[in-house]
Amino acid sequence: MASAKPKFPAIKPGGSLILAWQVKGKHVVVVGGGEVAAGRIVHCLNADAVVTVVCPTSGLNPEVAFRVSEGQVKHTDRNFEQSDLDDADMVLVAIDDPAASTAIWKLCKERRIPANIADVPPECDFYFGSVHRDGPLQIMVSTNGKGPRLAASIRKFIAKQLPSNAGNAINSIGNLRVKLRSIAPDPAESRKRMAWMTKVSDTFSWEEMCKLTDEDMDFLLRYYPENKAPSFSELRIAQGAPDPQGVDPFDGSFGFSVGA
Amino acid sequence: MASAKPKFPAIKPGGSLILAWQVKGKHVVVVGGGEVAAGRIVHCLNADAVVTVVCPTSGLNPEVAFRVSEGQVKHTDRNFEQSDLDDADMVLVAIDDPAASTAIWKLCKERRIPANIADVPPECDFYFGSVHRDGPLQIMVSTNGKGPRLAASIRKFIAKQLPSNAGNAINSIGNLRVKLRSIAPDPAESRKRMAWMTKVSDTFSWEEMCKLTDEDMDFLLRYYPENKAPSFSELRIAQGAPDPQGVDPFDGSFGFSVGA
Repeated sequence: MASAKPKFPAIKPGGSLILAWQVKGKHVVVVGGGEVAAGRIVHCLNADAVVTVVCPTSGLNPEVAFRVSEGQVKHTDRNFEQSDLDDADMVLVAIDDPAASTAIWKLCKERRIPANIADVPPECDFYFGSVHRDGPLQIMVSTNGKGPRLAASIRKFIAKQLPSNAGNAINSIGNLRVKLRSIAPDPAESRKRMAWMTKVSDTFSWEEMCKLTDEDMDFLLRYYPENKAPSFSELRIAQGAPDPQGVDPFDGSFGFSVGA
Repeated sequence: MASAKPKFPAIKPGGSLILAWQVKGKHVVVVGGGEVAAGRIVHCLNADAVVTVVCPTSGLNPEVAFRVSEGQVKHTDRNFEQSDLDDADMVLVAIDDPAASTAIWKLCKERRIPANIADVPPECDFYFGSVHRDGPLQIMVSTNGKGPRLAASIRKFIAKQLPSNAGNAINSIGNLRVKLRSIAPDPAESRKRMAWMTKVSDTFSWEEMCKLTDEDMDFLLRYYPENKAPSFSELRIAQGAPDPQGVDPFDGSFGFSVGA
């Protein structure tokens, strides 16, 4: 019996489940104080985690020692002990001791604590990748363990392509949503708000989004009541910017009326 | 007392900890069968998870119903019950019932099961982002909840910039590493192998890496014994490709001798 094949996304097995883990105020225990640990610590602090480094002072590299001395991380000045897991929400191990690493991994699994043992893929609930950061924007490149250096190279390539103010686009959208909620706070209007945000997002290229000023946004909100979204150039022209096309900004030729 | 400030990466708080979660063979419970659930299911199947959808058949949308009928996911044909968590490694909730969602979240937290309640940020251990996938390459764009549609738009922008065979570059590097290990299997040589892989990765642009054929790689390995890395054009010329510069490929003018 022949049947039309439904057009749903094809499954592409073999990847990871890439997730933006929320560790704000969570307790991450980093075991080790070398270069790998230093990298992990930066990732965690960038995500507002509370970090404890477990490592004898003699084993801290200059960067980790610096973060300890600045109070950016807590420091347990000895080798790992089981009690270090008592209030851990996540454990990252980066020590040159496979037996000790495996022992810590097993303890974490008994306690259902997510853990990563550096360089031991089977003893990892998750892998790290190469992350580009621009304000609220984070782009993570993973090669699923096949080429960490290439991941970093791809991440740099991507960063070079992005407009320098890409993070601003996201802040703009976030601000626009907040402003919108303040002029149209009715919970019953949530569907209308969402539909308009979608319309604006679909109308503007994200490069244009980057250029949106606070003034632009306030003006843009005037289009909300009628659920209209002007193009970026229409928006600028409507505000009285010089019109490259010679069109009178207020002649109604854009097919929508400007509320105000 | 003035002291030189160490030059370590500055902390940029406010982000997430983006991780490539390993869920191969792990049990992910998806509660709900609508559009959001459908998206979650694809993410999980792409990462080789074992997925159970908990939702009455009447609540399944066509895509989820299709995945159930194809046996891609297991199906529990009723509303959520506490026992659904018994062997869950991760729980994703996407139902239009805030009270039930919160109850599930609390149960997950009691049992230390990582969970995501769609559209309820405070009840999420992690957020999803927009993911580009090309073979082993995964690029995840997160706006940290500020603009999901913009994340998708940035993801598409990035995908457009990448060479169409970017995933191949990663497979190439992976293959080269495997080939290298087979011609130089001595564990004592691991440092030399790593140094050479690094040299090659640093010499080739990743666009060039994409173009590496199997033949190129076999030829490239001849440079390993002397820890040399030719440029991509040198490699092609050395193999007898037409030389745009008119240089005799074997006159030794590249500054290294070709082993073999």
